[in-house]
Amino acid sequence: MTVFHIASPDTGIACELQQKIDNLAKPRGALGALETVAMQIGLIQQTLSPSLRKPVNIIFAADHGIADEKVSKSPKEVTRQMISNFLDGGAGVCFLARQHGFGLKVVDAGVDYDFPPGLGIIHRKIRKGTRNFLHEAAMTADEMERAIRYGADIVTECCREGSNIISFGEMGIGNTAASSMWMACLADIPLAACVGAGSGLDGEGVRHKRQALQAALDNYDGNRSVWDVMRYFGGYEMVMAVGGMLRAAELKMAILVDGFIMTNCVLAASRLYPDVLPYCIYGHCGDESGHRTLLEALRATPLLHLGLRLGEGTGAICAYPLVSSAVRMINEMHSFSKASVTKYF
Amino acid sequence: MTVFHIASPDTGIACELQQKIDNLAKPRGALGALETVAMQIGLIQQTLSPSLRKPVNIIFAADHGIADEKVSKSPKEVTRQMISNFLDGGAGVCFLARQHGFGLKVVDAGVDYDFPPGLGIIHRKIRKGTRNFLHEAAMTADEMERAIRYGADIVTECCREGSNIISFGEMGIGNTAASSMWMACLADIPLAACVGAGSGLDGEGVRHKRQALQAALDNYDGNRSVWDVMRYFGGYEMVMAVGGMLRAAELKMAILVDGFIMTNCVLAASRLYPDVLPYCIYGHCGDESGHRTLLEALRATPLLHLGLRLGEGTGAICAYPLVSSAVRMINEMHSFSKASVTKYF
Repeated sequence: MTVFHIASPDTGIACELQQKIDNLAKPRGALGALETVAMQIGLIQQTLSPSLRKPVNIIFAADHGIADEKVSKSPKEVTRQMISNFLDGGAGVCFLARQHGFGLKVVDAGVDYDFPPGLGIIHRKIRKGTRNFLHEAAMTADEMERAIRYGADIVTECCREGSNIISFGEMGIGNTAASSMWMACLADIPLAACVGAGSGLDGEGVRHKRQALQAALDNYDGNRSVWDVMRYFGGYEMVMAVGGMLRAAELKMAILVDGFIMTNCVLAASRLYPDVLPYCIYGHCGDESGHRTLLEALRATPLLHLGLRLGEGTGAICAYPLVSSAVRMINEMHSFSKASVTKYF
Repeated sequence: MTVFHIASPDTGIACELQQKIDNLAKPRGALGALETVAMQIGLIQQTLSPSLRKPVNIIFAADHGIADEKVSKSPKEVTRQMISNFLDGGAGVCFLARQHGFGLKVVDAGVDYDFPPGLGIIHRKIRKGTRNFLHEAAMTADEMERAIRYGADIVTECCREGSNIISFGEMGIGNTAASSMWMACLADIPLAACVGAGSGLDGEGVRHKRQALQAALDNYDGNRSVWDVMRYFGGYEMVMAVGGMLRAAELKMAILVDGFIMTNCVLAASRLYPDVLPYCIYGHCGDESGHRTLLEALRATPLLHLGLRLGEGTGAICAYPLVSSAVRMINEMHSFSKASVTKYF
């Protein structure tokens, strides 16, 4: 297995960072979450004057064998159709990327379709969709290892291109189902609390999804290690994102976390390497049932609560201007003394 | 009194707007609050293709007689010192305005200081601070009328300059106290629930503030009409903001609402002209005790929850990129048919 060398940021600079923030001409703590994020970015970058460079969003896309069990409202072909929409600039993530200056990379991690060359897709197809985990492991150990490495290598490339903040998105019909399995097994939360409506199931649909996933859990006879749970239930796009997150933390990049599926990738990554967590900034708490519970399990405080449930990285990119505000705050705001304002605490 | 002609947006276009939003290639409702805001802006502008032009933040600043009762942690001179900080570009609102392309106008509505000319301040000083409402009315009816008119006229000017979205900020040591009085009287909420820590009072300080404000309420013998409550307890900056909001709604501009004090101005404005409300987009729920209660009383759903309590318009401007995202969404996202994505609902 690929090994990552991840170290939690040195907190030696924390006191100086807090002093700088507290000396800005405002009541102490009055910029709330912006102050928290400024501290976090300062620690990640080990500087009192952090900066954000070349933000990039990587969308990993793949199909899931479990989609055959009708666990999603959307038909499977939507995965490949949305790839085209990403490339054409028409998807939700596209207008957000344009608005906030994000680079966008679209990776075929395992879509059940043969894309012609020349579209701008990064081709890392492991297989045309995972196997159906109701009956067997979604992927082999070798496939998982390749997915981890591919995800990591793409992030290395982003870092070489100058990025120091990165978000991950996904596209894959059936991947809320796969994520629910990771959550139940890795966070030890009852499966029912991990399963939601995905792209829009009604009550009956959610009941059916719960039953199918419970049956899959009952059938599972693996050793419940993190790697085995990832392999048995995972999607190729999810495993690539885990590899990407681990590499990003290794390279001391800030990781902007998207919705339910990507938060499950943080969960898996952190069960392997707990020191990945200080690099994660949680973009939002989405509308998918289970996301809030999972964020609480991770002791994560998301920046936004907008009822989003689109994936693709949309919730992460929506939160980016707040991260940027935090960085501007610590760099651009005048201190009490520079502003000649009476310091009253 | 100045009369405003405010009409709620015609909802005839609502159905067509909803259809356009639902035809964008995403699960129905999956962009959450962005969809709600897109609908609201579409209604305000009466178009399926809304746009935002020249966003501007007006900061009204004034001093308060009630500050003599030690109801604020900050000394009174901070009001005038912060004006200089706004003009120098060093305040919290300044980096946010630069980040999001907001124009910034700073209005001396009644600061207890003689500013030299040539600083870039808009001089509309009514008086050097209000009277102390523990003992007497904060302002006269004539002063209030002038403040309403000045606020309205500045907004007319912004509209002439091309703005169609506007936020209001404030600076005024003591103005959370004044706002609490408006809230208690105009929203009929017990005073204790309306009083908070302002710029940073401790428990003992909040207790003293509550006692002082209760005494002021006990001394008040006015007729409890909206105008009388505004006049008796108001700040000049708050009344100017009310005038500005009413004119903005009259001119069919979107109003981005800041924190506790500005939400109280929305409360007062809406008690005079209820049709101002459909023009209001609530930027955030701040950390000042009472803000959440007040937002609930207004049935308002704020975009952000970041624990901000700085005022100046910071919470409104922080939320602007989300409004901009909503407008991009409805203009730039491809429909199911344009994107050739199977519509699955």
